[in-house]
Amino acid sequence: MNSVIERLRRTTDTVVGADDLRERLASGRQLRIKYGVDCTAPDLHLGHAVNLWMMRQLQDLGHRVVFLLGDLTTRVGDPTGRSETRPVLTPEQIEANAASFLEQVSLVLRTDPEVFEVRRNSEWYDAMSIAELLGLFAQVTQAQLMSRDMFRERVAAGREIAVHELVYPVLQAYDSFAMRSDLTIVGSDQLFNEQLGRVFQQRLGAPPQVVLTTTITPGIDGRAKQSKSLNNYIGLTDSPRDKFGKLMSIPDELVGPYAHVYTELPLADVAALSAATSGADGGGKGGGRAARDAKLRLAAAVVTRYHGAGVAKAELDNFRHTFTDHGEPADIPHIAYAADRATILDLLQAARPTESKSSLRRLLRQGAVTLNGQRLTDPTTPVSLTTPLTLKSGPRTWHRITSVRSSG
Amino acid sequence: MNSVIERLRRTTDTVVGADDLRERLASGRQLRIKYGVDCTAPDLHLGHAVNLWMMRQLQDLGHRVVFLLGDLTTRVGDPTGRSETRPVLTPEQIEANAASFLEQVSLVLRTDPEVFEVRRNSEWYDAMSIAELLGLFAQVTQAQLMSRDMFRERVAAGREIAVHELVYPVLQAYDSFAMRSDLTIVGSDQLFNEQLGRVFQQRLGAPPQVVLTTTITPGIDGRAKQSKSLNNYIGLTDSPRDKFGKLMSIPDELVGPYAHVYTELPLADVAALSAATSGADGGGKGGGRAARDAKLRLAAAVVTRYHGAGVAKAELDNFRHTFTDHGEPADIPHIAYAADRATILDLLQAARPTESKSSLRRLLRQGAVTLNGQRLTDPTTPVSLTTPLTLKSGPRTWHRITSVRSSG
Repeated sequence: MNSVIERLRRTTDTVVGADDLRERLASGRQLRIKYGVDCTAPDLHLGHAVNLWMMRQLQDLGHRVVFLLGDLTTRVGDPTGRSETRPVLTPEQIEANAASFLEQVSLVLRTDPEVFEVRRNSEWYDAMSIAELLGLFAQVTQAQLMSRDMFRERVAAGREIAVHELVYPVLQAYDSFAMRSDLTIVGSDQLFNEQLGRVFQQRLGAPPQVVLTTTITPGIDGRAKQSKSLNNYIGLTDSPRDKFGKLMSIPDELVGPYAHVYTELPLADVAALSAATSGADGGGKGGGRAARDAKLRLAAAVVTRYHGAGVAKAELDNFRHTFTDHGEPADIPHIAYAADRATILDLLQAARPTESKSSLRRLLRQGAVTLNGQRLTDPTTPVSLTTPLTLKSGPRTWHRITSVRSSG
Repeated sequence: MNSVIERLRRTTDTVVGADDLRERLASGRQLRIKYGVDCTAPDLHLGHAVNLWMMRQLQDLGHRVVFLLGDLTTRVGDPTGRSETRPVLTPEQIEANAASFLEQVSLVLRTDPEVFEVRRNSEWYDAMSIAELLGLFAQVTQAQLMSRDMFRERVAAGREIAVHELVYPVLQAYDSFAMRSDLTIVGSDQLFNEQLGRVFQQRLGAPPQVVLTTTITPGIDGRAKQSKSLNNYIGLTDSPRDKFGKLMSIPDELVGPYAHVYTELPLADVAALSAATSGADGGGKGGGRAARDAKLRLAAAVVTRYHGAGVAKAELDNFRHTFTDHGEPADIPHIAYAADRATILDLLQAARPTESKSSLRRLLRQGAVTLNGQRLTDPTTPVSLTTPLTLKSGPRTWHRITSVRSSG
């Protein structure tokens, strides 16, 4: 039992109800683990998977994950179009999203019925009267709900909170009672709602769920947390090659934290990887050989976890074959350019002919473009093509450019 | 039509939707007038009746009062016992209160089915799903609800607002849509909720109700508004004698305002009554003959309104017979006191033997006790009974006290 707690602790930030957790794991009973999701289109990434792997550890001990679709709230219309948090979905969209969710979740969780169960919160809310719902509301104060970080931030920013959004935490909390949750593993942004779940369970005479929140690491840009809109995440459905390549592109200082939460490498090995990547430059451009090897080890460990050791070995070999020790690919496509003078924007257009000028300018602005290793951000920068040039645009796209005029 | 508006205006404080009111009265259609009440035990007083008489005027023109029992919210349990506003009632209590309400209301309103209809808001809320309710919540922001005076005052006083209380205005507002309200006449404390009703009706594609709020006058103590707990009100079910007596006891400065809102005396007469009671002393003790006649006129007009001219005439005669021109009753009970020295508290105990010392001390503190016309407030004040004394305790209780020892 202590070894389970020890394993969970590796990626745990906060525990609410540590005594309850110990007691319940010792009880020998199959625990019900609440995994609540809304029904918007999912795109699970390594950050989400931290929680899933913890659930998987518990499944391997015989406990049951209850995958709870919050379909009720997804059906709530917002005629004003003011809701910021959740779009209104048709029943078909909800089902399609739920299917996609399950498919992605099954990359980590076991989905056999002994240890996995799918529920929808409409099951209990469709049967609940409005008087009963108001009775739940009576147990919470306005001030408690408004104390939630997300709401306070919105008020501070002068943005509105619709009343249905305000009361969602009450519904999410009651879910824990209705589905008899013993334990839930969530991001820290859900801590408030799930703690409220404990309160409801206790008031309604049920044992309160344990709440674990997980460690959050930044996305592959080293700054913001992983999100689809920032395109700085590693998706569970990314190909092994993409996972490998994205991990090779992270800033050095992320190697240790990533190895800690995204792999099961022994902690001593994690410490060694951290040491190898905490070198002098620290600027994220990836310096020495040791740092590169550390990233390779990380990338292989992550790919092993999702795709097995065989696939990881193949990707490791591919990467070593494709890129030189200096990090350039061994085989770079060649462009023959029809002039011997150009701007950097001209060259980008030649290299990425299907993309718009504005998206190329954005690439430049983001610092994603280098020419012979030098970062260029101004699209009008003049370039002389008297010698062959190496253009890198984005983390993994390389071109060798020579002028046809100068060479021919 | 303009004459209706003119008559309503006499007791109207605020009109929301004045154009709608004019248009709808001109339409010739039977209007639906929302009269929403909660289901707590009612004790209607002259203040409530101001609104009822306005509805009655509209009934006399053929419009329909819809008496709406807010039974849904009354059934909401509050397991924490924290709710300040509404106790939880059993269905039997709700029905008993509703019956009592109807009985009192019928003292003013017509209750024949052409112009009167009873509805319960559980009719629509029992049929509404929780998803639909959340859809209503989506149309209102937390900030809008919290802008309500009552909530702001509670926050300022450091008191909590339970979430069910917070959302009640949404339900009350939706009621207006569900029952197709054209018009509602409420106290100013309900203005926010009923304006929200307009918003809902418009959003849901219905014509918005007109909202009239009524003038509020203080209770018979001239200070706080009429309330059961302060016992400063004139109840609709009070006997004609009690109504008459209570009105004779009001401070002079209330005679004009009362005549304005509680009677249909011509406004010129109201002005004359105001003039007669705005004399020099103004202290509320009721001075001259003119002021007394003005009060008699007011009392007779109010009793006429509720009980008819015959009863009013009888009460007027009774009062004139019972009380001298100086305001003392013609026939005062006599007490023979067994000592010639006492405190004022001793005398009060002799006069009101069934009351506790603490309630007698309270009477003194409130300034409700005079001895030979002089107000006494300290219970230990020594009194000499060498001559007969006139003790007045409370607005209409008189005793003549003589010492048996001194006289015998």
